[in-house]
This record gives sequence, structure tokens and C-alpha cells, in this order.
Amino acid sequence: MRHILIIGAGKSTGVLVDYLIKKAEKEHLKITIADKSIEAATKLTQDNQNAAAIELDIFNAQARKEQIKAADIVISMLPARFHIEVAKDCVEMGKNMVTASYVSPEMKALDAQAKEKKLVLMNEIGVDPGIDHMSAMQVIDRIKNKGGKMILFESFTGGLVAPEDDNNLWNYKFTWNPRNVVVAGQGGAAKFIQEHKYKYIPYHRLFRRTEFLEVDDYGRFEAYANRNSLQYREIYGLDDIATLYRGTMRRVGFSKAWNMFVQLGMTDDSYILDDSMNMTYREFVNSFLPYSPTDSVELKMRHELKIDQDDIMWEKLAELDLFNNQKTIGIQEATPAMALQKILEDSWTLKEGEKDMIVMYHKFGYEIDGEKKQIDSTMVCLGDGDHQTAMAKTVGLPVAIAALAILNGTIKSYGVQIPISKEIYEPILEELEEYGIRFRESKTPYLGYNALHR
Amino acid sequence: MRHILIIGAGKSTGVLVDYLIKKAEKEHLKITIADKSIEAATKLTQDNQNAAAIELDIFNAQARKEQIKAADIVISMLPARFHIEVAKDCVEMGKNMVTASYVSPEMKALDAQAKEKKLVLMNEIGVDPGIDHMSAMQVIDRIKNKGGKMILFESFTGGLVAPEDDNNLWNYKFTWNPRNVVVAGQGGAAKFIQEHKYKYIPYHRLFRRTEFLEVDDYGRFEAYANRNSLQYREIYGLDDIATLYRGTMRRVGFSKAWNMFVQLGMTDDSYILDDSMNMTYREFVNSFLPYSPTDSVELKMRHELKIDQDDIMWEKLAELDLFNNQKTIGIQEATPAMALQKILEDSWTLKEGEKDMIVMYHKFGYEIDGEKKQIDSTMVCLGDGDHQTAMAKTVGLPVAIAALAILNGTIKSYGVQIPISKEIYEPILEELEEYGIRFRESKTPYLGYNALHR
Repeated sequence: MRHILIIGAGKSTGVLVDYLIKKAEKEHLKITIADKSIEAATKLTQDNQNAAAIELDIFNAQARKEQIKAADIVISMLPARFHIEVAKDCVEMGKNMVTASYVSPEMKALDAQAKEKKLVLMNEIGVDPGIDHMSAMQVIDRIKNKGGKMILFESFTGGLVAPEDDNNLWNYKFTWNPRNVVVAGQGGAAKFIQEHKYKYIPYHRLFRRTEFLEVDDYGRFEAYANRNSLQYREIYGLDDIATLYRGTMRRVGFSKAWNMFVQLGMTDDSYILDDSMNMTYREFVNSFLPYSPTDSVELKMRHELKIDQDDIMWEKLAELDLFNNQKTIGIQEATPAMALQKILEDSWTLKEGEKDMIVMYHKFGYEIDGEKKQIDSTMVCLGDGDHQTAMAKTVGLPVAIAALAILNGTIKSYGVQIPISKEIYEPILEELEEYGIRFRESKTPYLGYNALHR
Repeated sequence: MRHILIIGAGKSTGVLVDYLIKKAEKEHLKITIADKSIEAATKLTQDNQNAAAIELDIFNAQARKEQIKAADIVISMLPARFHIEVAKDCVEMGKNMVTASYVSPEMKALDAQAKEKKLVLMNEIGVDPGIDHMSAMQVIDRIKNKGGKMILFESFTGGLVAPEDDNNLWNYKFTWNPRNVVVAGQGGAAKFIQEHKYKYIPYHRLFRRTEFLEVDDYGRFEAYANRNSLQYREIYGLDDIATLYRGTMRRVGFSKAWNMFVQLGMTDDSYILDDSMNMTYREFVNSFLPYSPTDSVELKMRHELKIDQDDIMWEKLAELDLFNNQKTIGIQEATPAMALQKILEDSWTLKEGEKDMIVMYHKFGYEIDGEKKQIDSTMVCLGDGDHQTAMAKTVGLPVAIAALAILNGTIKSYGVQIPISKEIYEPILEELEEYGIRFRESKTPYLGYNALHR
């Protein structure tokens, strides 16, 4: 029996456990799910004989080490900041490890030690980061192997509501951590390259510099720039590429509307609102508008944001019940971002049975035999229900597949890894297709930079 | 003889030394000017027998302590971050001290020790902070002493070019540290209270939420909000005031034009531009605009900022030679803010003989005997020439007057002080009038919040 320890019974852990339980007999797996809530962990075992639940406080170093010591491989589904202590224990005790989070500098620092002990510390193997890396590198490697030279790479991902439940004016519902959506794009200007020119977009302009993307059968989307695209030059080996851009996908119109919150200052997470506990939604809005002894909050808002009487932007605000003077924020020491999140959760929380959707879009421009060409590659994954969400599947499945591959010794890239080598991505992408996570490619002459869209 | 040590031969030190030299005989003063540049220090002595110059590296603790030990009082005209080491020495060796800078938490921590040793550590006694504190508290105390209750306090200061040299489209030139102008308002939302309502303005809206102010003989100004007005409730004893607002004054139209830089992201000081050394002004501008294979930087700029053909905003940009493709930033690892500063310094540096101006405007609203009233108080100080600038006078004179008063024992408020008590501000404001720094008051019925202007 091989012993897999999964720490953290979070949103994607269900799919991950399902996968492993199904393989347990054939692959001789013993699965332990550890969480601070024994109930959450127990629920995921499905009373399966090969799966057990335990209560674990990850801040209890002794208990943590004991569990890790008993495992053959550790999967950390904890929030990203908690991985490092687990990783240190794994290196100390000679265990492989898998996470779906970005490699932190502290994690990176374990590389030499892990290599020395022939351990795999696999990270960034969820959806974004994860499936984006794998699906992009598969095409990039193919182009390079044929002698092509990469001249453009653009990559976009979005977590959205599935078309059948897409029924509000924002064409958006929260399908993952709402907080990340509210503060998205903050912490510095977005940086990318277009035709060898460095471009910078400050946060307060981010949602006004979008581009459109068409996905067959799913229609039109828009994308705004992620914070730092430049680091992908090194990671993907695209050092002298002319255009490099990564972005987040939304339905058309979301960004223009979201920009209203940004402009007012409602997404700020750096200071505390006065008496946020008792502040009504209306008072929250009013705190970002000039004082007037006579004018209504509504009129001041229309004036400040230049919203015409018949502008759909206004309906989008009204739909959120933003001007309600009875509903209160009800949070002690809330920042504007926390207050906004509360208001949005009233409207944008998925109801039972409502489905989500993950959309990914890559553009690859390249030159081969003196000709410029382009490949567009898209993937859409729909959620199947409350637990088998698209987000849980696209995060949980690659983590599970990778963990088993490491256990079986088919992944032998030691050290702190991300899934960008063929040895890793090829079998995982192939298996993901069985679960409906597949990319569709279309080839065109090089379109390059389309001036109409940016 | 009483020995005054002045550390730092900066821009305001000349006026300060002039004042003390003139009083030297009568007051039995010996003045030592210490600076890392002996030339700068020597120049300020004017070959006067009561003044001496020495070279001092303030990071050389031994040399610094030696000089402080020999003094009766120390005036630090160093950049604000360097005061603390001098202050610690002063407390250790039982010396009084004066600075024109904001009290830092480290400075504040010396309060108990200073009180114990009966030392005065006087801070914030330049113009802003300084003359603003004193002139505001004089009126506030007068209103309170008559039984009035403060309901509104608004206070505005601006460092500007004098009307006779006000000859560019921005009605602005650098009269002090240009860097502070470029990054003004950054580091958090502006916070204030209007009619008991908390108001927050994010940085990217700051320059669009201005109000107008009229000063007799000088015409109309505008003001944008300073970052945190709320702290003045405590400092000025205005705890339950309905309206509290502090702002920075500019000539009308400056803020709307400055907002163009803010919108583009050119004032960002948080990241490094790629190859800023060789970047032309035009390339700098282009890095904040979308790529286009065909459109000019000019057209993209007009489109991005929605500037019509005949809009004066465009002339303001053109006046700065912003689209020049020959002039380079010429700074290694420049942030956008550093690059913008370089471009602005080409146009906004005061030429020899050009004069500056300091403008201050306070509004005091109060209730007395059931009636609401208002006092508006304004001060304009004009520079007299290259050294006797308005900024140097309004900073250097109150520092000098306070130092002499402390030396003469007429200021006896021990500990870490700012000039908000009558004992301090009354004689200083009176003496400042001799130098033309005087406030003019006008009384009106309470105007309160003027909805037309904010």
C-alpha cells in the first residue's frame, strides 16, 4: 500500500479524493484526509475503506510531522501561505509533495535540498497556474521542435458562471474566492510587451484597456491584463518574444461596469471605514461621493461617473441593491474592499445547483520557413453540480494525476517544479481529456496585433 | 555668549541665519553652521564675526555629538528622516532642539525623557506644518475663549510661482522639492469629514474633486484634498467638528491637467521603467498607451484621455515637449514618477530672479449665542529674489524666532512640541508680521458647505 496524505479539505479536495478513491484498489492507495475540521475531512472519505479522515491543526508541528512521516506523498490543499511549513517537513523527512499554488521564494529556496534527496516538490499544477502552463508549453514545444520561432504568446483564463445560469446583468457570479475577485489587479501596474514595446497600465485604468476574444459555441468574452506578464518570458523560454500578454477573461461589459467600483475607490483594501458595522449600503456608496445638502446619492453617483439616464451601467448598479439604506455592511473594521465583497455576495453567490465554467484561451504567433502563422487554442470546462464544479475539477484533477504519477515514478524531475516539461504535461493533459478538459485548436495566418481590439 | 548650532545648509537656512546674525550682537549669539559641504556652510556666514562654518558628516556620531555638546540649542534643517539621531543626542546631552518637520513616531518617543530634563524639542514650526498650525490655533482659541463652538475648519496651503512670473499654461513652477509635487497625494485615500459624514477619495480621483477659493487681490485658486485630515481633530482639539478638510492650493486648471498624468500612470513611483536611461520623452508617453501599428502617439493620447482638438489640455501637454523623440530621460532605473519629474523640471524650474509665492487660506465656521458665523483668514507671502524666497522665509523665520525664544526661556513648554499653544504662537505670529507674513481676516455669516464648489 502507498500512503497519500491530503492536507486541507477545501473546495477542490472533493474531486481530488474522488479520483484517488477510484484508483485506490488498482493502485494500492491508502488515502488520509487531514483538516482542522474532522467533519469536513470525514465527508470526503465517502465511507470508503481506502480513505480515512483525521483532525489536524497544521500549526501543531509535532502532529503535522507525525502525519507527514507516515505518508509516501503529501498533497497540500491549504491556502498558499501555509504550504511552506509542510514543504520543509517533506524535505526533512524525504517525502514528495504537490500543491496547486504559485512557487513562493521560500518554496524556491528548498530546491537544492529537494534535488539532493531526489524529491519532487510539484507546484502550480491546478488550473491557473497549472493547466495554463501545461497546455501552453505543449504547443510552444511543438512549434519550437518543428523549427518555428515564437513571436507572440497571449494567454487568458476566466472563472465564470455557466451559460445556463448566467442570468444577471453582470454576466458574473462568484465561483471561487470572492476576495480575489474584488482586489484583482491591485498591488502595482500591469506590465506586458506588445511588438517589442513595454507597456504599463495603472490599476485605475486596467478595466478600460480590455480586448475581445471569441470562443466557438460560447460567444464573445473580454480580457483585462494580469499584473505581471513579463516573468513568463523566462518561465516559458520566450526570451526575445515580441508580444507577451496574460489576462483574465470576463463576459463583455463586466470590466466597464467593474471600473465604476474602481473609480469610486470601493475596491481599496488599505484602510478601515469608519463604523463599517452599522454602515448601510447607501452610506457606503455616499462615503465616496461629495457631500451635498440637497442632492440624492443617486444623482451624485450618476454625475460622478457620468452615467446617462438610459445607460445600462445604472441598471447594473441598481441590480446590486447598492442604494439600500436598510441593509448594513455588518463587519467590524471593514475595508472598502471587504464592504464591497459583502454587497456583491448578496447578488453573486451561486445558488444550489447553479453551475460554473472555466474558460481558457491561448494565442501562439510564430514564424516558420519565412512564414508567419498563428494557433489559437481554447478550452471550456463546465461544472456538473455543486461539488463537481469546473473550478474543483480543473484544480483537483491535475493535482491528483500528478500525485499518482510522482508516486509511480513516471515524473522524475526532482526539486521545486512547475509543470512545464513534456515528461510532466504530456500524460497529464492526455488523461485530463478523459474528463472533458480538452483544448481545441484553430490555425490561421498570423493575425498578430489586432488594432481594433486593444 | 549663547551658542546656536544649525545643522544643514539647505534652502531655508539662509533666511534663518540672516535673522540670527542680525540679532547676534544684541542677543549675544554665536552661530555655527554645519553641513557636509563646507562651501555651502561658509557662504551662509556672510563673513560675519559671530558666525562660523564647519564641515560635518552627520553619520559620524562622534563628530556630531562633539558639535551638539558645544551648543546651547540645535536647529536641524536636515531632511526629515535625519532629525532623530540629532534629537537623541540633544536629549542625551540636555540641549533644546528645533525642526520644521512633522513629528515622527521615533521623535514622539523622546517626549518623556525630554520633559524630565526640561528640554524643548520643537517641531513642525516651518510653514506647512508650522505657520498653518499657529495661525489656525490663534483663531480657534479666540473663538473658543469667546464661548464659540467650532463646526467647520478647512485649511489650505500652496507653494506657487509669484503672479509676475506666472507665465506658463500650468500656472505652476517648482518652488520646493519637485519630487514631493510629483508623488503628492499617493500612499492611501484622502480622508475627511463633511457635515459629520466621512468622505474618502482614492488617489486617482483626487485631482477631480477640487474646490475653488478666492483670495483678495490674487484671484481664484483651487484646492485638492490632503491625504489625512482626520488627525487634525485631535491635534487642534476639534473632536466633534462637523466639517474638517485640509488641502493643497493650486491655480485653477492645474489639477484637471495634472490628472492626465495620474490617469496615464506617469506618477507611479513603485516600479522601474525598462531602459529608462535611453528612453525618449515620446517613448515614455507611449509606454502608457496601447500599441498600434499605425496610429501616432499623439492620436492615441488624445483618444485615451478624450482630449478634443481645441482643448487647452492638449496645449498644456505640448508645452512640456512631451512628444519629443530626441530628449531622453537619462536616469538609470527611473520610476515613472522620476521620469515625469525630469520632464517637468525642463519646463518648471524657476529661472534666476523668478519669484515664488506662498498662499494660505483657513475657513473657521462656529456657533456662538445661537448664531452661526464664519471667519476666513488668508495669507500671501511673496519671494523677494533668489535666496529670500517665500518658501525660505516662511520656513526659516518661524524656526529662527522659535529658537531664540527657547534660548531666552520665553517658551517653556517642555517635551516634544508643535506650535499650537498660545505661549508659542502668539509672539511668533506677531514678529512674523514685521516680515510681511500676516493674515487678513474677513467675517461673514456661516456659509458652511457650498454645494456649488465641491
